[in-house]
Amino acid sequence: MDERLKKQLDFSLEIDKEKNIFRQTHLSGHGRRENDAEHAWHMAIMAYLLREYANEDVDLVRVMLMCLIHDIVEIDAGDTYAFDSEGLKTQREREGRAKERLFGLLPADQGTELTALFEEFEAYETPEARYAHALDNLQPLLLNNSNDGGDWKEHGVTASTVYGRHRKTRLGSEKLFEVTDQLLKDNIRKGNLPDR
Amino acid sequence: MDERLKKQLDFSLEIDKEKNIFRQTHLSGHGRRENDAEHAWHMAIMAYLLREYANEDVDLVRVMLMCLIHDIVEIDAGDTYAFDSEGLKTQREREGRAKERLFGLLPADQGTELTALFEEFEAYETPEARYAHALDNLQPLLLNNSNDGGDWKEHGVTASTVYGRHRKTRLGSEKLFEVTDQLLKDNIRKGNLPDR
Repeated sequence: MDERLKKQLDFSLEIDKEKNIFRQTHLSGHGRRENDAEHAWHMAIMAYLLREYANEDVDLVRVMLMCLIHDIVEIDAGDTYAFDSEGLKTQREREGRAKERLFGLLPADQGTELTALFEEFEAYETPEARYAHALDNLQPLLLNNSNDGGDWKEHGVTASTVYGRHRKTRLGSEKLFEVTDQLLKDNIRKGNLPDR
Repeated sequence: MDERLKKQLDFSLEIDKEKNIFRQTHLSGHGRRENDAEHAWHMAIMAYLLREYANEDVDLVRVMLMCLIHDIVEIDAGDTYAFDSEGLKTQREREGRAKERLFGLLPADQGTELTALFEEFEAYETPEARYAHALDNLQPLLLNNSNDGGDWKEHGVTASTVYGRHRKTRLGSEKLFEVTDQLLKDNIRKGNLPDR
């Protein structure tokens, strides 16, 4: 097998490990914890379904790819919960090393392309990155809302912290931020999320 | 919330159930069984990585979407193992009902679009559908190959049956069929797949 194809298949096999990286979000129906691959799949479909609500026109294939690969670094760096302030301090450094190792498995052109896409997502500046982040926020919110806010309760998270996380959704989609605000208010009213 | 957005979010939540549909393939490292959402995520990334090997030029966003949604019907219809001859007899009818219910949750334009994409995949005629099928075959083969053919052994499957399944990979990608053939021959030689 030629070297290029071998690298592509080696990378394909390596990323299988993302299915073993579990998040704090639980599946709907009060299910088990969700893993990164499932989360990414869900986001990529939502990227297609909800693209009319992106604040600016977006290149769908770039958004979908961003969604699909944005957590690959967690194969080495592990999942950092959105409200884990200690873990967040070292996240960038851990994920930087992971990015080099993992995308370094690919042929140079594809490694460069996926690294750039990952960094674009992280930088939160392009319409695609901002819209992808809106989905990264909304997808677990949909699940958690369907589970009566169980993930917030488990971690003792309050409304101000959750709003802090979701505030930037409006950079990608004003409309999806409206939905977010409505869901959060519903959960505060129901007592699922302490209003402080 | 307006009716259109509500339908889009209801569908988004409903497809969460795909994460509970388990396949016969096991994750690499002799892991647990893989579910449909993980399989679809993996295929969609491979669609990007390996597109240079498609026999014809393909529209990547259409291939990726096809990969992402091709198993959604299994939420209602369940997974049918590729070598389960009894299950295969009723698969089309079960999946037809599921298709109507699930895509029927969406606004009509998106329901029609995803139904058409699903049917295009099933029909195996366009370059996109043929390439997506090549990935649908190759992805579990990569995992099973990494696990010394454990999935074949568990089901007592022989080489002729497996070749029957993979034969159509060459309709989508001659190059990926070459890889398939090489992997199958390796496994026959190692005694993982009986040569009959």
